[in-house]
Amino acid sequence: MRKFNISPLDRSLEPALRNRIDNLTKPKGSLGRLEDLALQIGLIQKSLKPMFRSPANILFAADHGIIAEGVSVSPKEVTWQQLAHFSKGGAGINFLCDQHGFRLVLVDAGVDYDIPQGHGIIDMKMGRGTGNFLHEPAMTTDQWHEALDRGARVVEMVHADGCNVVSFGEMGSGNTSPSALWMHILTEIPLSLCVGAGAGLNNSGVGHKLRVLSQAIDNCPLDKADIQGRLAYFGGFEMAMAVGGMLRAAELGMLIIVDGFIMTACIAAAMSIDPAVKEYAVFGHCGDEAGHKLMLEALGARPLLHLSLRLGEGSGAVCAFPVIDSAARMITEMDTFADVDVTKYF
Amino acid sequence: MRKFNISPLDRSLEPALRNRIDNLTKPKGSLGRLEDLALQIGLIQKSLKPMFRSPANILFAADHGIIAEGVSVSPKEVTWQQLAHFSKGGAGINFLCDQHGFRLVLVDAGVDYDIPQGHGIIDMKMGRGTGNFLHEPAMTTDQWHEALDRGARVVEMVHADGCNVVSFGEMGSGNTSPSALWMHILTEIPLSLCVGAGAGLNNSGVGHKLRVLSQAIDNCPLDKADIQGRLAYFGGFEMAMAVGGMLRAAELGMLIIVDGFIMTACIAAAMSIDPAVKEYAVFGHCGDEAGHKLMLEALGARPLLHLSLRLGEGSGAVCAFPVIDSAARMITEMDTFADVDVTKYF
Repeated sequence: MRKFNISPLDRSLEPALRNRIDNLTKPKGSLGRLEDLALQIGLIQKSLKPMFRSPANILFAADHGIIAEGVSVSPKEVTWQQLAHFSKGGAGINFLCDQHGFRLVLVDAGVDYDIPQGHGIIDMKMGRGTGNFLHEPAMTTDQWHEALDRGARVVEMVHADGCNVVSFGEMGSGNTSPSALWMHILTEIPLSLCVGAGAGLNNSGVGHKLRVLSQAIDNCPLDKADIQGRLAYFGGFEMAMAVGGMLRAAELGMLIIVDGFIMTACIAAAMSIDPAVKEYAVFGHCGDEAGHKLMLEALGARPLLHLSLRLGEGSGAVCAFPVIDSAARMITEMDTFADVDVTKYF
Repeated sequence: MRKFNISPLDRSLEPALRNRIDNLTKPKGSLGRLEDLALQIGLIQKSLKPMFRSPANILFAADHGIIAEGVSVSPKEVTWQQLAHFSKGGAGINFLCDQHGFRLVLVDAGVDYDIPQGHGIIDMKMGRGTGNFLHEPAMTTDQWHEALDRGARVVEMVHADGCNVVSFGEMGSGNTSPSALWMHILTEIPLSLCVGAGAGLNNSGVGHKLRVLSQAIDNCPLDKADIQGRLAYFGGFEMAMAVGGMLRAAELGMLIIVDGFIMTACIAAAMSIDPAVKEYAVFGHCGDEAGHKLMLEALGARPLLHLSLRLGEGSGAVCAFPVIDSAARMITEMDTFADVDVTKYF
């Protein structure tokens, strides 16, 4: 069982970073959130001139036993169909990765389909979908730890290729259900505020989903204090791998861009294992899924973008990258007042 | 005197655009604001596969007579110093233009300094700064029309080079004062809600600025109903050129990205000349200047980004470009369900 050992950010460079940011040729503070991001990026990279290399979006796909209960408008086959589609190009995440220079890393974390080889999809399959947690555990504790480890190994691959900024995405019909349960378990926000429309349920569908998830909690035999046990019980293979990937990315000193509702639930889970992971994270986007804003607030997170996306795949995280990259370029490329003949004006 | 003749958007392509957007391989509506933008861009370009070419940020610089009244923390010489700095690189707008592939077009609209030739700064100088509108008109009506025309001519230059998306920026110490007055004149929002800290005034400085601007309104001999006359009376040369530039860009069918507080006041002014200009505009950013959010609301505008920028120079508009470009790439590059073997899932 892998142990993660994340270093809290070394703050020794903070005065020098703040001094540089405050003396760039602009009114002090006038680049707003770019200035906060530049400090965080400089601390993560331990550099006054940070830069990003080889960004990657790691997309984990898996199926969910709970979908048998009618909690999703997306049929299950969409998971493998879309995973295959991503490998050929032409899906949402493809144009975004192309636009922003991201390598798209596709991982079969547990899709209920025999994914053909030769399309560059990494085989980390934990099974053909999870168990239906209305009646049984989604996965065993051993599977949970194995999935964390596999997620970590995928991050090691991209890190070995020089990547120092990584976003995580997912594809998995039905996966707002486990995410809503993780949110409820980790934030103690009432379940009714954690459950939303997913890919497009109507009000009656959301009501049914809430009843199913509420019943699943009642049926779960685990002690409420057993957080890790309950994350496994109600989890998804793609989600567990993202959690392991996030923890490993922080351990390796990479910047993590958090995507939407499902990936926010995953970093909340990662924070329950090691809170220091949050110092390496930037929250890319707040979407329209009902609980997302509440979960971000509960985590003390300020998302960069509000574009009403609810696609998943890492789309909100990749969309946010240019802003994060601007922050690195600001501190690395801008002149200071000491460099040029401009009167300091603030 | 130039007349602008902006065509309202031709809506005949709207059903085909909506049909294509709704059938891209994603749950319907799941790309949120990108979908709204794609419709607007498709209508502007009259194409189901729109794309952007040769983006440009046109930055107009000028000085303001009102600065003699102590309404700005930025000394006047910062205007020409920063304009010269932009021409050499290393300022805020430079790294953003480099990052997003924007040509940076620098224009001396009326700087109180003899800008040396040979640095690529376009000479459209209307004078060495405006008159101090506490006591006299900032510019004459003839100058107003001449400045609109010169701004239009700069846009014609970039359009001739193939540009179809343009942002406007400004450099002008003191120019939040004329912008606050324009906002007040155009939206009828009380002046006290239009006046803010600019590049960094403290509370007492903001109070002084409000008293000066309030007195300037009292001193102005023009009839309150003479909107165009009052825009000239309280305007800036860089602002007038941006207004002319925006009107001409819309006339030429280009997409306009609106920057922060000052450029929002400029598009409000452009809308007072021809409301159709708004159909060609995307509002890039809502910044921290006090009145900006109120002015955007008054215009019925929804900005894309909220990054607490207050730099000007076009920075918020250029930062927003990747999101706008994502919208064009979405509709142009994504497959539809008819193209691939994915079950439609919504």
